[in-house]
Amino acid sequence: MKVSAVETGEISQVSAPRKGMIRGLSIMDFILRIVAAIGTLGSALSTGTTRETLPFTTQFVKFRAVFDDLPTFVFFVTSNSIVCGYLVLSLALSFFHIIRRSSAAKSRILLVFLDTVMFGLLTTGAAAAGTIVYVSHYGNVNANWFPFCGQYNHFCERISGSLIGSFIAVVIFMIIILMSAVSISKH
Amino acid sequence: MKVSAVETGEISQVSAPRKGMIRGLSIMDFILRIVAAIGTLGSALSTGTTRETLPFTTQFVKFRAVFDDLPTFVFFVTSNSIVCGYLVLSLALSFFHIIRRSSAAKSRILLVFLDTVMFGLLTTGAAAAGTIVYVSHYGNVNANWFPFCGQYNHFCERISGSLIGSFIAVVIFMIIILMSAVSISKH
Repeated sequence: MKVSAVETGEISQVSAPRKGMIRGLSIMDFILRIVAAIGTLGSALSTGTTRETLPFTTQFVKFRAVFDDLPTFVFFVTSNSIVCGYLVLSLALSFFHIIRRSSAAKSRILLVFLDTVMFGLLTTGAAAAGTIVYVSHYGNVNANWFPFCGQYNHFCERISGSLIGSFIAVVIFMIIILMSAVSISKH
Repeated sequence: MKVSAVETGEISQVSAPRKGMIRGLSIMDFILRIVAAIGTLGSALSTGTTRETLPFTTQFVKFRAVFDDLPTFVFFVTSNSIVCGYLVLSLALSFFHIIRRSSAAKSRILLVFLDTVMFGLLTTGAAAAGTIVYVSHYGNVNANWFPFCGQYNHFCERISGSLIGSFIAVVIFMIIILMSAVSISKH
Protein backbone atom coordinates (compact mmCIF):
# COMPACT_ATOMS: atom_id res chain seq x y z
CA MET A 1 0.00 0.00 0.00
CA LYS A 2 2.81 2.37 0.97
CA VAL A 3 4.83 1.58 -2.12
CA SER A 4 1.95 2.35 -4.47
CA ALA A 5 1.31 5.63 -2.62
CA VAL A 6 4.93 6.68 -3.07
CA GLU A 7 4.75 5.73 -6.78
CA THR A 8 1.59 7.80 -7.30
CA GLY A 9 3.25 10.72 -5.51
CA GLU A 10 6.27 10.46 -7.79
CA ILE A 11 4.12 10.37 -10.91
CA SER A 12 2.19 13.50 -10.00
CA GLN A 13 5.43 15.27 -9.02
CA VAL A 14 6.95 14.48 -12.42
CA SER A 15 3.74 15.32 -14.29
CA ALA A 16 3.54 19.00 -13.27
CA PRO A 17 6.78 20.25 -14.85
CA ARG A 18 6.23 17.85 -17.77
CA LYS A 19 2.84 19.38 -18.51
CA GLY A 20 4.41 22.83 -18.24
CA MET A 21 7.13 21.80 -20.68
CA ILE A 22 4.62 20.31 -23.17
CA ARG A 23 2.56 23.50 -22.96
CA GLY A 24 5.66 25.65 -23.50
CA LEU A 25 6.69 23.57 -26.51
CA SER A 26 3.14 23.77 -27.93
CA ILE A 27 3.09 27.57 -27.66
CA MET A 28 6.57 27.77 -29.22
CA ASP A 29 5.34 25.47 -32.02
CA PHE A 30 2.38 27.77 -32.68
CA ILE A 31 4.58 30.89 -32.86
CA LEU A 32 7.19 29.22 -35.09
CA ARG A 33 4.47 28.09 -37.51
CA ILE A 34 3.28 31.70 -37.86
CA VAL A 35 6.87 32.89 -38.53
CA ALA A 36 7.41 30.12 -41.09
CA ALA A 37 4.08 30.91 -42.78
CA ILE A 38 5.11 34.58 -43.09
CA GLY A 39 8.51 33.51 -44.49
CA THR A 40 7.00 31.25 -47.18
CA LEU A 41 4.31 33.81 -48.04
CA GLY A 42 6.98 36.48 -48.40
CA SER A 43 9.06 34.22 -50.66
CA ALA A 44 6.08 33.30 -52.84
CA LEU A 45 4.87 36.89 -53.21
CA SER A 46 8.32 38.35 -53.72
CA THR A 47 9.22 35.84 -56.45
CA GLY A 48 5.77 35.91 -58.03
CA THR A 49 5.86 39.67 -58.55
CA THR A 50 9.42 39.84 -59.89
CA ARG A 51 9.73 41.33 -63.37
CA GLU A 52 12.24 43.57 -65.07
CA THR A 53 12.15 45.30 -68.44
CA LEU A 54 15.46 46.63 -69.69
CA PRO A 55 15.42 50.30 -70.77
CA PHE A 56 16.21 49.54 -74.42
CA THR A 57 14.50 47.58 -77.20
CA THR A 58 15.38 46.50 -80.71
CA GLN A 59 12.85 46.58 -83.55
CA PHE A 60 11.64 43.06 -82.77
CA VAL A 61 12.71 42.26 -79.24
CA LYS A 62 11.76 43.77 -75.92
CA PHE A 63 14.17 42.70 -73.19
CA ARG A 64 11.97 41.58 -70.38
CA ALA A 65 12.43 39.05 -67.56
CA VAL A 66 9.50 37.59 -65.61
CA PHE A 67 9.75 34.91 -62.93
CA ASP A 68 7.84 32.35 -65.02
CA ASP A 69 10.45 32.51 -67.78
CA LEU A 70 12.10 29.77 -65.71
CA PRO A 71 9.85 26.83 -64.71
CA THR A 72 11.90 26.34 -61.54
CA PHE A 73 10.67 29.64 -60.16
CA VAL A 74 7.08 28.63 -60.92
CA PHE A 75 7.71 25.48 -58.87
CA PHE A 76 9.31 27.59 -56.14
CA VAL A 77 6.26 29.87 -55.92
CA THR A 78 3.90 26.87 -56.00
CA SER A 79 5.75 24.92 -53.29
CA ASN A 80 5.99 27.97 -51.03
CA SER A 81 2.27 28.68 -51.50
CA ILE A 82 1.30 25.09 -50.68
CA VAL A 83 3.52 25.03 -47.59
CA CYS A 84 2.18 28.43 -46.49
CA GLY A 85 -1.41 27.15 -46.83
CA TYR A 86 -0.51 24.01 -44.90
CA LEU A 87 1.14 26.03 -42.11
CA VAL A 88 -1.96 28.23 -41.72
CA LEU A 89 -4.22 25.14 -41.57
CA SER A 90 -1.86 23.39 -39.13
CA LEU A 91 -2.24 26.31 -36.72
CA ALA A 92 -5.63 24.85 -35.77
CA LEU A 93 -4.05 21.55 -34.72
CA SER A 94 -1.20 23.38 -33.03
CA PHE A 95 -3.71 25.46 -31.04
CA PHE A 96 -5.57 22.24 -30.12
CA HIS A 97 -2.27 20.94 -28.68
CA ILE A 98 -1.95 24.02 -26.48
CA ILE A 99 -5.40 23.64 -24.91
CA ARG A 100 -5.62 19.80 -24.87
CA ARG A 101 -2.02 18.97 -24.11
CA SER A 102 -2.67 15.62 -22.40
CA SER A 103 -4.48 13.51 -25.02
CA ALA A 104 -2.88 14.52 -28.26
CA ALA A 105 -0.17 11.95 -29.02
CA LYS A 106 -1.85 10.67 -32.20
CA SER A 107 -2.49 14.10 -33.68
CA ARG A 108 1.11 15.04 -32.87
CA ILE A 109 2.37 12.01 -34.81
CA LEU A 110 0.13 13.00 -37.73
CA LEU A 111 1.60 16.51 -37.56
CA VAL A 112 5.20 15.19 -37.49
CA PHE A 113 4.49 13.18 -40.65
CA LEU A 114 2.82 16.08 -42.49
CA ASP A 115 5.59 18.43 -41.31
CA THR A 116 8.20 16.06 -42.71
CA VAL A 117 6.45 15.87 -46.11
CA MET A 118 6.07 19.67 -46.25
CA PHE A 119 9.67 20.12 -45.12
CA GLY A 120 10.71 17.93 -48.07
CA LEU A 121 8.56 19.91 -50.53
CA LEU A 122 9.85 23.26 -49.27
CA THR A 123 13.49 22.11 -49.32
CA THR A 124 13.06 20.81 -52.88
CA GLY A 125 11.65 24.15 -54.04
CA ALA A 126 14.33 26.18 -52.26
CA ALA A 127 17.18 23.98 -53.50
CA ALA A 128 15.90 24.01 -57.10
CA ALA A 129 15.47 27.81 -57.09
CA GLY A 130 18.87 28.23 -55.39
CA THR A 131 20.50 26.15 -58.12
CA ILE A 132 18.98 28.25 -60.90
CA VAL A 133 19.94 31.47 -59.09
CA TYR A 134 23.51 30.15 -58.88
CA VAL A 135 23.62 29.38 -62.63
CA SER A 136 22.04 32.78 -63.38
CA HIS A 137 24.81 34.49 -61.45
CA TYR A 138 27.84 32.45 -62.50
CA GLY A 139 26.69 30.50 -65.57
CA ASN A 140 28.57 27.37 -66.56
CA VAL A 141 31.41 27.47 -69.06
CA ASN A 142 31.39 23.72 -69.74
CA ALA A 143 27.68 23.62 -70.59
CA ASN A 144 27.81 26.97 -72.47
CA TRP A 145 25.20 28.42 -70.14
CA PHE A 146 25.85 32.15 -69.81
CA PRO A 147 24.92 34.13 -66.70
CA PHE A 148 22.20 36.72 -67.30
CA CYS A 149 22.50 38.55 -64.00
CA GLY A 150 24.89 41.07 -65.56
CA GLN A 151 21.97 42.38 -67.65
CA TYR A 152 18.97 41.65 -65.42
CA ASN A 153 20.49 42.99 -62.24
CA HIS A 154 17.30 43.95 -60.41
CA PHE A 155 15.57 40.69 -61.38
CA CYS A 156 18.43 38.61 -59.99
CA GLU A 157 18.73 40.57 -56.75
CA ARG A 158 15.02 40.22 -56.12
CA ILE A 159 14.97 36.47 -56.86
CA SER A 160 18.04 35.86 -54.67
CA GLY A 161 16.45 37.79 -51.81
CA SER A 162 13.24 35.81 -52.16
CA LEU A 163 15.09 32.65 -51.14
CA ILE A 164 15.71 33.98 -47.62
CA GLY A 165 12.12 33.56 -46.39
CA SER A 166 12.07 30.02 -47.70
CA PHE A 167 15.39 29.10 -46.07
CA ILE A 168 14.20 30.53 -42.73
CA ALA A 169 11.08 28.34 -42.99
CA VAL A 170 13.28 25.29 -43.74
CA VAL A 171 15.27 25.83 -40.53
CA ILE A 172 12.04 26.39 -38.56
CA PHE A 173 10.63 23.10 -39.85
CA MET A 174 13.69 21.28 -38.49
CA ILE A 175 13.16 22.88 -35.07
CA ILE A 176 9.40 22.10 -35.15
CA ILE A 177 10.01 18.41 -35.94
CA LEU A 178 12.56 18.17 -33.11
CA MET A 179 10.16 19.88 -30.69
CA SER A 180 7.32 17.56 -31.71
CA ALA A 181 9.53 14.51 -31.00
CA VAL A 182 10.34 15.89 -27.54
CA SER A 183 6.62 16.64 -26.88
CA ILE A 184 5.60 13.12 -27.91
CA SER A 185 8.24 11.60 -25.61
CA LYS A 186 6.84 13.59 -22.66
CA HIS A 187 3.36 12.13 -23.01
CA MET B 1 -5.12 -1.35 -2.73
CA LYS B 2 -7.38 -3.14 -5.16
CA VAL B 3 -7.48 -0.17 -7.49
CA SER B 4 -3.71 0.10 -7.70
CA ALA B 5 -3.45 -3.65 -8.35
CA VAL B 6 -5.90 -3.38 -11.27
CA GLU B 7 -3.94 -0.43 -12.64
CA THR B 8 -0.67 -2.34 -12.46
CA GLY B 9 -2.35 -5.25 -14.21
CA GLU B 10 -3.57 -3.02 -17.00
CA ILE B 11 -0.15 -1.50 -17.55
CA SER B 12 1.59 -4.85 -17.90
CA GLN B 13 -1.16 -6.09 -20.27
CA VAL B 14 -0.70 -3.07 -22.54
CA SER B 15 3.06 -3.25 -22.34
CA ALA B 16 3.50 -6.64 -24.06
CA PRO B 17 2.08 -5.79 -27.52
CA ARG B 18 3.61 -2.32 -27.22
CA LYS B 19 7.07 -3.77 -26.66
CA GLY B 20 6.49 -6.08 -29.61
CA MET B 21 5.49 -3.14 -31.78
CA ILE B 22 8.52 -1.07 -30.71
CA ARG B 23 10.79 -4.02 -31.48
CA GLY B 24 9.14 -4.50 -34.88
CA LEU B 25 9.56 -0.81 -35.71
CA SER B 26 13.20 -0.89 -34.58
CA ILE B 27 13.99 -3.87 -36.83
CA MET B 28 12.18 -2.20 -39.75
CA ASP B 29 14.17 0.99 -39.04
CA PHE B 30 17.44 -0.98 -39.19
CA ILE B 31 16.53 -2.61 -42.52
CA LEU B 32 15.33 0.66 -44.10
CA ARG B 33 18.58 2.38 -43.10
CA ILE B 34 20.57 -0.30 -44.92
CA VAL B 35 18.40 0.11 -48.05
CA ALA B 36 18.75 3.93 -47.92
CA ALA B 37 22.54 3.62 -47.43
CA ILE B 38 22.76 1.39 -50.52
CA GLY B 39 20.61 3.89 -52.48
CA THR B 40 22.78 6.90 -51.59
CA LEU B 41 26.00 4.93 -52.15
CA GLY B 42 24.71 3.86 -55.58
CA SER B 43 23.80 7.45 -56.47
CA ALA B 44 27.18 8.81 -55.34
CA LEU B 45 29.20 6.13 -57.15
CA SER B 46 27.10 6.21 -60.29
CA THR B 47 27.33 10.01 -60.61
CA GLY B 48 30.96 10.17 -59.52
CA THR B 49 32.08 7.77 -62.26
CA THR B 50 30.06 9.35 -65.08
CA ARG B 51 32.13 10.56 -68.00
CA GLU B 52 31.64 10.62 -71.76
CA THR B 53 34.01 11.49 -74.56
CA LEU B 54 32.41 12.09 -77.92
CA PRO B 55 33.92 10.07 -80.82
CA PHE B 56 35.18 13.16 -82.69
CA THR B 57 37.63 15.97 -81.92
CA THR B 58 38.66 19.21 -83.59
CA GLN B 59 42.29 20.35 -83.69
CA PHE B 60 41.98 22.15 -80.35
CA VAL B 61 38.94 20.76 -78.59
CA LYS B 62 38.19 17.30 -77.26
CA PHE B 63 34.47 16.90 -76.53
CA ARG B 64 34.38 15.40 -73.09
CA ALA B 65 31.80 15.56 -70.26
CA VAL B 66 32.68 14.67 -66.67
CA PHE B 67 30.34 14.97 -63.69
CA ASP B 68 32.43 17.71 -62.06
CA ASP B 69 31.96 20.00 -65.07
CA LEU B 70 28.84 21.08 -63.17
CA PRO B 71 29.36 22.04 -59.50
CA THR B 72 25.84 20.84 -58.68
CA PHE B 73 26.82 17.25 -59.38
CA VAL B 74 29.84 17.63 -57.11
CA PHE B 75 27.44 18.77 -54.39
CA PHE B 76 25.13 15.85 -55.22
CA VAL B 77 27.98 13.32 -54.84
CA THR B 78 29.16 15.01 -51.62
CA SER B 79 25.72 15.13 -50.01
CA ASN B 80 24.98 11.51 -50.92
CA SER B 81 28.36 10.40 -49.54
CA ILE B 82 27.81 12.28 -46.26
CA VAL B 83 24.29 10.85 -45.85
CA CYS B 84 25.53 7.35 -46.70
CA GLY B 85 28.26 7.67 -44.05
CA TYR B 86 25.71 8.93 -41.52
CA LEU B 87 23.32 6.06 -42.29
CA VAL B 88 26.07 3.47 -41.75
CA LEU B 89 27.05 5.09 -38.43
CA SER B 90 23.40 5.38 -37.36
CA LEU B 91 23.02 1.60 -37.75
CA ALA B 92 24.83 1.26 -34.41
CA LEU B 93 22.20 3.37 -32.64
CA SER B 94 19.42 1.61 -34.53
CA PHE B 95 20.80 -1.77 -33.41
CA PHE B 96 20.97 -0.45 -29.84
CA HIS B 97 17.25 0.37 -30.10
CA ILE B 98 16.48 -3.22 -31.10
CA ILE B 99 18.23 -4.74 -28.08
CA ARG B 100 17.49 -2.00 -25.49
CA ARG B 101 14.00 -1.02 -26.58
CA SER B 102 12.76 0.18 -23.17
CA SER B 103 15.19 2.94 -22.16
CA ALA B 104 15.99 4.64 -25.42
CA ALA B 105 13.64 7.64 -25.71
CA LYS B 106 16.46 10.22 -25.61
CA SER B 107 18.61 8.50 -28.21
CA ARG B 108 15.52 8.16 -30.41
CA ILE B 109 14.91 11.92 -30.21
CA LEU B 110 18.57 12.52 -31.11
CA LEU B 111 18.14 10.19 -34.08
CA VAL B 112 14.93 11.97 -35.23
CA PHE B 113 16.81 15.29 -35.21
CA LEU B 114 19.86 13.96 -37.07
CA ASP B 115 17.56 12.14 -39.53
CA THR B 116 15.71 15.40 -40.21
CA VAL B 117 18.96 17.29 -40.87
CA MET B 118 20.25 14.52 -43.16
CA PHE B 119 16.86 14.33 -44.90
CA GLY B 120 17.18 18.06 -45.61
CA LEU B 121 20.74 17.68 -46.94
CA LEU B 122 19.81 14.73 -49.16
CA THR B 123 16.69 16.47 -50.51
CA THR B 124 18.72 19.59 -51.28
CA GLY B 125 21.28 17.57 -53.23
CA ALA B 126 18.65 15.58 -55.12
CA ALA B 127 16.57 18.67 -55.97
CA ALA B 128 19.62 20.64 -57.14
CA ALA B 129 20.84 17.77 -59.32
CA GLY B 130 17.31 17.17 -60.63
CA THR B 131 17.06 20.84 -61.65
CA ILE B 132 20.34 20.72 -63.58
CA VAL B 133 19.31 17.43 -65.23
CA TYR B 134 16.06 19.11 -66.29
CA VAL B 135 17.90 22.10 -67.81
CA SER B 136 20.39 19.73 -69.49
CA HIS B 137 17.50 17.90 -71.15
CA TYR B 138 15.22 20.78 -72.08
CA GLY B 139 17.38 23.89 -71.78
CA ASN B 140 15.71 27.26 -71.36
CA VAL B 141 14.90 29.46 -74.33
CA ASN B 142 14.40 32.62 -72.27
CA ALA B 143 17.79 32.38 -70.57
CA ASN B 144 19.55 31.16 -73.75
CA TRP B 145 20.66 27.98 -72.00
CA PHE B 146 20.83 25.22 -74.57
CA PRO B 147 20.29 21.55 -73.70
CA PHE B 148 23.41 19.41 -74.15
CA CYS B 149 21.73 16.02 -73.75
CA GLY B 150 21.32 15.74 -77.52
CA GLN B 151 25.11 15.43 -77.82
CA TYR B 152 26.06 13.83 -74.51
CA ASN B 153 23.39 11.17 -74.54
CA HIS B 154 25.11 8.54 -72.41
CA PHE B 155 26.24 11.15 -69.87
CA CYS B 156 22.70 12.44 -69.42
CA GLU B 157 21.11 9.01 -69.14
CA ARG B 158 23.62 7.98 -66.50
CA ILE B 159 23.18 11.18 -64.48
CA SER B 160 19.37 10.96 -64.66
CA GLY B 161 19.45 7.34 -63.52
CA SER B 162 21.73 8.26 -60.62
CA LEU B 163 18.96 10.34 -59.10
CA ILE B 164 16.79 7.26 -58.47
CA GLY B 165 18.85 5.92 -55.55
CA SER B 166 18.79 9.33 -53.93
CA PHE B 167 15.02 9.74 -54.35
CA ILE B 168 14.40 6.27 -52.86
CA ALA B 169 16.50 7.30 -49.83
CA VAL B 170 14.47 10.53 -49.51
CA VAL B 171 11.22 8.54 -49.31
CA ILE B 172 12.79 6.10 -46.83
CA PHE B 173 13.86 9.00 -44.60
CA MET B 174 10.24 10.19 -44.44
CA ILE B 175 9.11 6.69 -43.38
CA ILE B 176 11.94 6.42 -40.81
CA ILE B 177 11.04 9.77 -39.20
CA LEU B 178 7.36 8.73 -39.00
CA MET B 179 8.29 5.36 -37.48
CA SER B 180 10.58 7.05 -34.94
CA ALA B 181 7.71 9.34 -33.86
CA VAL B 182 5.45 6.30 -33.40
CA SER B 183 8.17 4.46 -31.43
CA ILE B 184 8.74 7.44 -29.14
CA SER B 185 4.99 7.71 -28.47
CA LYS B 186 4.87 4.04 -27.41
CA HIS B 187 7.46 4.52 -24.66
